[in-house]
Amino acid sequence: MATHTVIFGPQGDQVDVPTGTLLVEAARQANIDLQQPCGGQGRCGRCVVKVEEGAIRQRSSLRLSQEDLDKGYAPACQAVVEGEAHITVPPQEKIERRLTTDRVVGDVQVPAGYEPATAQSIQRIPLSLQPPSMDDQTDDWSRVQRALRQQADIKEVEISPSSLRSMGSALREKDWQATTIVDTRNWRQPEGTARLIDLIPGHPDDDAPMWGLAIDIGTTTVSVWLVNLLSGEVKAQVAEYNQQIGRGEDVISRIIYASKGEGGEEMRGLVLDTINELVKRACLRAQADAGEIVKATIAGNSTMMHLLLNIPAASIRLSPFVTAINHLPILLAKDVGLNIHPQASVDCLPGVASYVGADITAGVLSSGVDSSEEVKLFIDVGTNGEIVLGSRDWLVTCACSAGPAFEGAGVQDGMRATKGAIEEIWINADTYEPSYRVIGGVKARGLCGSGLIALLAELFLTGVLDKGGSFDTSLETPRIRKGEHGAEYVVVWAEESGHGEDIVITHVDVDNLLRAKAAIYAGFTVLADKVAVPLQSAEQVLVGGSFGKYINVEKAVEIGLLPDMPWEQFQFLGNTAIQGAYLALIDFEARQRIQEIAARMTYIELSADNSFYEAFTSASFLPHTDLKHFPSVAEKFEQMKNIQPAEVCAP
Amino acid sequence: MATHTVIFGPQGDQVDVPTGTLLVEAARQANIDLQQPCGGQGRCGRCVVKVEEGAIRQRSSLRLSQEDLDKGYAPACQAVVEGEAHITVPPQEKIERRLTTDRVVGDVQVPAGYEPATAQSIQRIPLSLQPPSMDDQTDDWSRVQRALRQQADIKEVEISPSSLRSMGSALREKDWQATTIVDTRNWRQPEGTARLIDLIPGHPDDDAPMWGLAIDIGTTTVSVWLVNLLSGEVKAQVAEYNQQIGRGEDVISRIIYASKGEGGEEMRGLVLDTINELVKRACLRAQADAGEIVKATIAGNSTMMHLLLNIPAASIRLSPFVTAINHLPILLAKDVGLNIHPQASVDCLPGVASYVGADITAGVLSSGVDSSEEVKLFIDVGTNGEIVLGSRDWLVTCACSAGPAFEGAGVQDGMRATKGAIEEIWINADTYEPSYRVIGGVKARGLCGSGLIALLAELFLTGVLDKGGSFDTSLETPRIRKGEHGAEYVVVWAEESGHGEDIVITHVDVDNLLRAKAAIYAGFTVLADKVAVPLQSAEQVLVGGSFGKYINVEKAVEIGLLPDMPWEQFQFLGNTAIQGAYLALIDFEARQRIQEIAARMTYIELSADNSFYEAFTSASFLPHTDLKHFPSVAEKFEQMKNIQPAEVCAP
Repeated sequence: MATHTVIFGPQGDQVDVPTGTLLVEAARQANIDLQQPCGGQGRCGRCVVKVEEGAIRQRSSLRLSQEDLDKGYAPACQAVVEGEAHITVPPQEKIERRLTTDRVVGDVQVPAGYEPATAQSIQRIPLSLQPPSMDDQTDDWSRVQRALRQQADIKEVEISPSSLRSMGSALREKDWQATTIVDTRNWRQPEGTARLIDLIPGHPDDDAPMWGLAIDIGTTTVSVWLVNLLSGEVKAQVAEYNQQIGRGEDVISRIIYASKGEGGEEMRGLVLDTINELVKRACLRAQADAGEIVKATIAGNSTMMHLLLNIPAASIRLSPFVTAINHLPILLAKDVGLNIHPQASVDCLPGVASYVGADITAGVLSSGVDSSEEVKLFIDVGTNGEIVLGSRDWLVTCACSAGPAFEGAGVQDGMRATKGAIEEIWINADTYEPSYRVIGGVKARGLCGSGLIALLAELFLTGVLDKGGSFDTSLETPRIRKGEHGAEYVVVWAEESGHGEDIVITHVDVDNLLRAKAAIYAGFTVLADKVAVPLQSAEQVLVGGSFGKYINVEKAVEIGLLPDMPWEQFQFLGNTAIQGAYLALIDFEARQRIQEIAARMTYIELSADNSFYEAFTSASFLPHTDLKHFPSVAEKFEQMKNIQPAEVCAP
Repeated sequence: MATHTVIFGPQGDQVDVPTGTLLVEAARQANIDLQQPCGGQGRCGRCVVKVEEGAIRQRSSLRLSQEDLDKGYAPACQAVVEGEAHITVPPQEKIERRLTTDRVVGDVQVPAGYEPATAQSIQRIPLSLQPPSMDDQTDDWSRVQRALRQQADIKEVEISPSSLRSMGSALREKDWQATTIVDTRNWRQPEGTARLIDLIPGHPDDDAPMWGLAIDIGTTTVSVWLVNLLSGEVKAQVAEYNQQIGRGEDVISRIIYASKGEGGEEMRGLVLDTINELVKRACLRAQADAGEIVKATIAGNSTMMHLLLNIPAASIRLSPFVTAINHLPILLAKDVGLNIHPQASVDCLPGVASYVGADITAGVLSSGVDSSEEVKLFIDVGTNGEIVLGSRDWLVTCACSAGPAFEGAGVQDGMRATKGAIEEIWINADTYEPSYRVIGGVKARGLCGSGLIALLAELFLTGVLDKGGSFDTSLETPRIRKGEHGAEYVVVWAEESGHGEDIVITHVDVDNLLRAKAAIYAGFTVLADKVAVPLQSAEQVLVGGSFGKYINVEKAVEIGLLPDMPWEQFQFLGNTAIQGAYLALIDFEARQRIQEIAARMTYIELSADNSFYEAFTSASFLPHTDLKHFPSVAEKFEQMKNIQPAEVCAP
């Protein structure tokens, strides 16, 4: 097949590729990593490049104007090389690699009454063996098994070929004083069976740590806690963006990307790189040796679990939305690809369905909903919103595809919660002038999720937006104007912004945000209807997800995202997924409880439910078509209307 | 560190190696494979090279005369590079890669009454699955497990990450008609648990084969049988020299070689190459796809098992002679390195002790000693002789280090049973002239094991050798002469031999052979003494090992190697190890019987037993100090002495 030289400017890297190669692929070969947040579907426009000259065929030109096309712009994920070409790559939005929660969280306590040293499954057992002699020619492994039976009541132990290779010298090095590290309780095996992880010479000090990991693989952020299994103490907490982000911002885009060519292996490599880098960092901080980490417990949504193991995830995306597997077996670190002890146990926590994964079962555990006498509502808001309603007697769950709007994607000036993002905002009800707070205290570059929630609430309460989300263009302010996509509100003028352009929220953005919040709220109401339990009867609303730590509840209620309940009933739990993974790591009973949670939860598929569409439509207004669901907002709205201009204080 | 150029002639290959590199290692880097039958101990002299010039230091010069040393000869395994050097490699004795038993053995019958399709552990289960729907969003793997529970009563199944990767598309390819291949009975697991080996689309024909392997890893020869697990039929039988031979002819030399540097990994690679090559050949013959072989059952002595998995074997060689492991867990083909289905079960059969391995437990099974009402004697003669005495009520076993003399090693003109080897011999009692038969019908180049047994018997019966193994130099024949190592008998004159040199048996050779046969016979007697059962009371003597097929019983009794019993009580069984592996492969009950055999056998360590040395000393004569143990030989000896010359017929 003919090959063609493609030159990438401005640096001038060049590659030779065959006819039919996608430009993104050619770019990768030239070591240029084009971001593809939509997973290479040609929808996001983030990979647009300029074809200076040459034979490039465009399969799709979605998102590009005729003017752009005339100038030679093309989405690289949709452009096919058919001859020599010269391409210019515009400076791309860099993914800012910020540590989102990379600090020791002071409030992680070893649960009272737990005894991690014996409660968790990994046991370190020092053995004093009788050396072999002509009177006792028992083979080495039978000798160890015999000692484990006699000294630790372990009846059956498995050993791997690699452990067999090192066993003989380990036993003899300290004259038949040796220590076994054994995974004694696999929840899938009958009691009394075990697996040897390592056999080391001599007897360690009693207070020498034995390391484990709790891991949460979020679509956006991966968190890792390094734990001393013997004390239960968390010795390091680190977090980092999931490197898969560059290949799709939501799970759907990533599934699509992973389904193409070597995409699955690439995705696996990216998340492993992220985790292994974090493990290295945590070990450095705690002065631990990664090779001595003998167990990892992993939470994450079902798509993240599939991508971690490169299990095809296409069926998650397509009706009837099934996973390949919800309950993974215990795996070995070497098979998963974690750079810890190769024989370490890797326990991927169980999920319930395609969109209710192990992050939720772990979250329910750490929230305590499953053992509560009163009914509680648990919600984990992220790219998807997962909702659990129930008590110790029953648990129902659903997932609603909110989309990434609240994470700043799919919104014209949206961005992630990084430096330069507006995170809180207030609007003067008289002048319609905004004031706002920017992450990092720099000039604003866009709006992150909490900023968008606040903006929506303020625009509504000040009458800039009506119930239906339409701009009142009759108001006398230059900030409301007609833009390319209909009416829009200017949050920051070009001269005050960090990039010299206006920061706006458009009618289209408002529609996206309304759909997102409507999906979540409809989830609440349908779930409550299904079990005939009014939302308001829930004793508590537990909000999980790292998103949950930053949003302003009052404003989230004002726009109808969260149910209208007294503030004191809301509790923000932070990352419940990793907290649940941590508990499962250090406490075998907690691990079994997650198993029971997964088995007990009744999953309601909203896309199969007509009442969801009705609830969704009703919730697609600010805050809702039926204001009696939001009495406090109705009251506030009335107050705002009656306020005299002089009483409004600029913030 | 300084590096030096070493040139290997006559071809002139050259390599650069650092100071201190052994010449064998330098040669390997120059792609010259020097044979090291003694395992690099500097004892065999097979790797001798000539140092034309250069700085080479000799650590040991064992086996080289001063004359050789003066000429520059050096054992490459003991010569260290200390500067530039020019080396000449003499043409080495090539290992003849002969197919020893590479033919279909006609007498392998599927045992009557066995039903292999259900008796063995691998089951092929066609499933018709209900496709997922919005009403049944069960994940793929739970759906398969549910069907296995309902349709095949399999309660618990394990799955590997790689099977999870291919499962989804396999299920959908033929519209939810699929077939699982499952290992249903692992002897270490409770009943009802199983492991998924493969999940394939659609339903195969009922008569489509399902492949398994029976493998025997001999020190000298590796045998492989390809078996259709559904019918039990053996579809191909192939065998080949174990490629490890070039690194040591006996297990001791190989253990030494494997203990040095990367020797263990090299040994593992060599035996895997041998097996994988044989599997390829067997598949070609049976038109099978190696990727469809789903189980392998392996027999072999304890050292061979350790080397196959690169488990350090040093403790086998050193007192108190213990293995790392006798009962290996079921392994996966991908972990062992067999080029068959990566998830295939690999069942390494259990051994009893360092020198009574799985070849013997499998051999006992196929010989039937363990289920016999009468006492039987089972012997497997190879480089080591393993002996089992017993019945269904008791089993005792021992191993005697016969050494490789009967395989042609350690004897001046000894060789393996290949083309050019004298395999049978007769001596005229009047003229002392020999006549003989040569393998391949060519000119003789040496003597193999059966030839040496025959020669020893004839020399004894004709009075050339006395009871003590001394030559009667007073006899009038040029064939008895004084050689470099004392008296010797010329079997073939230089002008009649294949290599133009005399073929002789020396006094030293006779001593070696006597020690070998004495060790084995002493094993018999000590074992019989231990259980107070006279050897003669054994109903049958079952002789296994490929050696067993070729020796002349009468002559083996005449020299006192086998006990003096009527011919009809001897039965030659051929390779009992692979026959046992085959039974264990196709019949789960047989596999369990091997497990019981291993548990039941009482191992007697001869080196710890004083009575062994007495028995050994008594047996170090022809045929024995005490002729009443060999009445038939005594009688024959008397007849020979009384025979008139005319009555002796030339053969």
